[in-house]
Amino acid sequence: MKQQEREAISKEKLRKYTRLHQKKQREREGLFLAEGLRTVRELCQNIADEEMLVALLICETQSEDLRFTQPWSGKVFFITEKESSQLSQTATSQGVFGVFRQQRNFEPFGEGEKGSSFIVALDDVQDPGNVGTILRTAAWFGVDGVICSAGTVDRYNAKAVRSSAGSLYAIPHYEVDHFAEELKRLQGLGYSIVSASLDGKDFREFSSRPEKQVLVIGNEANGVSDQVQALSDRLVRIPHSGKKARVESLNASVSAAILIERMLLD
Amino acid sequence: MKQQEREAISKEKLRKYTRLHQKKQREREGLFLAEGLRTVRELCQNIADEEMLVALLICETQSEDLRFTQPWSGKVFFITEKESSQLSQTATSQGVFGVFRQQRNFEPFGEGEKGSSFIVALDDVQDPGNVGTILRTAAWFGVDGVICSAGTVDRYNAKAVRSSAGSLYAIPHYEVDHFAEELKRLQGLGYSIVSASLDGKDFREFSSRPEKQVLVIGNEANGVSDQVQALSDRLVRIPHSGKKARVESLNASVSAAILIERMLLD
Repeated sequence: MKQQEREAISKEKLRKYTRLHQKKQREREGLFLAEGLRTVRELCQNIADEEMLVALLICETQSEDLRFTQPWSGKVFFITEKESSQLSQTATSQGVFGVFRQQRNFEPFGEGEKGSSFIVALDDVQDPGNVGTILRTAAWFGVDGVICSAGTVDRYNAKAVRSSAGSLYAIPHYEVDHFAEELKRLQGLGYSIVSASLDGKDFREFSSRPEKQVLVIGNEANGVSDQVQALSDRLVRIPHSGKKARVESLNASVSAAILIERMLLD
Repeated sequence: MKQQEREAISKEKLRKYTRLHQKKQREREGLFLAEGLRTVRELCQNIADEEMLVALLICETQSEDLRFTQPWSGKVFFITEKESSQLSQTATSQGVFGVFRQQRNFEPFGEGEKGSSFIVALDDVQDPGNVGTILRTAAWFGVDGVICSAGTVDRYNAKAVRSSAGSLYAIPHYEVDHFAEELKRLQGLGYSIVSASLDGKDFREFSSRPEKQVLVIGNEANGVSDQVQALSDRLVRIPHSGKKARVESLNASVSAAILIERMLLD
């Protein structure tokens, strides 16, 4: 990029973008902030509509390979080290930020769905790293969509964005106020609700596989809620080795990955 | 716990424990610091020898269920909120800390091994959350041990400890200076070296399963090193759906989990 194309950023915009660390502000603006070369590059690669990118903010001391910014040169702004550390939430910032639009107009899943379909639903998953990682895994395995309960951590949180590795634009996802009702709606459309549970049946014991499935992943400490377990068609568990597990449980994004892979592949 | 059993902590000890945030200091002392009710409780539950617990530090404002500390009452110290925030590395500390001894005297894997054996080896895995999560997954599935290359992030790092969910005491693990040589040693003992690689063969295409296996998981950005790929008996890949993956790759701890589960279970 030639020096003369470099543009500085106004104080007002910088303040606005810094406020995107707050969920309330992200929702009001319909935007989110991504940090880190890899994360920002992956999001740029997955953009369907160029309007989704609002701005790329690059620290003037950045010396990484920034070729991916070339198609967006009109939206690239250069920031000082001080501005960069103001925007950053990490101790060791790479000085690469992107401001993107949230995708929020997904159609409700399942309505026109013919043939097989697989949806992942998150029941109050709390850790942003888990939410982002589950989106990434779901995108890899071609899951049709991800539903988040209102108690699930915001998937546009900076840490979730980082863990999602660009998949926020690679897979449909939405949040619902009434999680159990949403699952019942899908059940009415022929979906089997399969909840991950330590009390469930070993996944190897299910011989048939429903054509339409919703896999529910629960909260890290408490698992899938009682209400959702009660309406589930299946409770499924990942077996451990030996008589007694040497750890209490698996990480939520690991459980999700193993079950998605087992329930979709084969 | 009765009030009179509560003991305050000396300034010297507090300083010593706070310095455990540094790897150098952890190695010098042979100790590590764990934070958070769940993490500390899980470690306490997995202790084989009571000498492994040095101290439990509880913030005086803590109101959680601390019954798990009862067997250790002689090692429980109460700290002020200020001392707690000094020890903490998280923004929202729960005020529960444990100082534990590192386990460092594991025998080299494979020497006396008869029958089937499965080892996981980490080739410069950088993210402490990934290292901890892989240890946890390995413990769940009954992996025999985990080997870390010198370039893999310290598994006694606070974030790795948190992600490991007590598994640091539930599974043998050690670090080696010469990673490729260690793999060659195991190869000499009859182990197949299986490296995860995006260029590998779909895991569903391998019909036989070696009795003794080492699964190598590579660095998040660069994968398994060329040197290790070259000496590997198999390169294995997790298939994505569709013609083109919608994300570049899976998270390292997710890849590890899917491969461990597929290679061990069935």
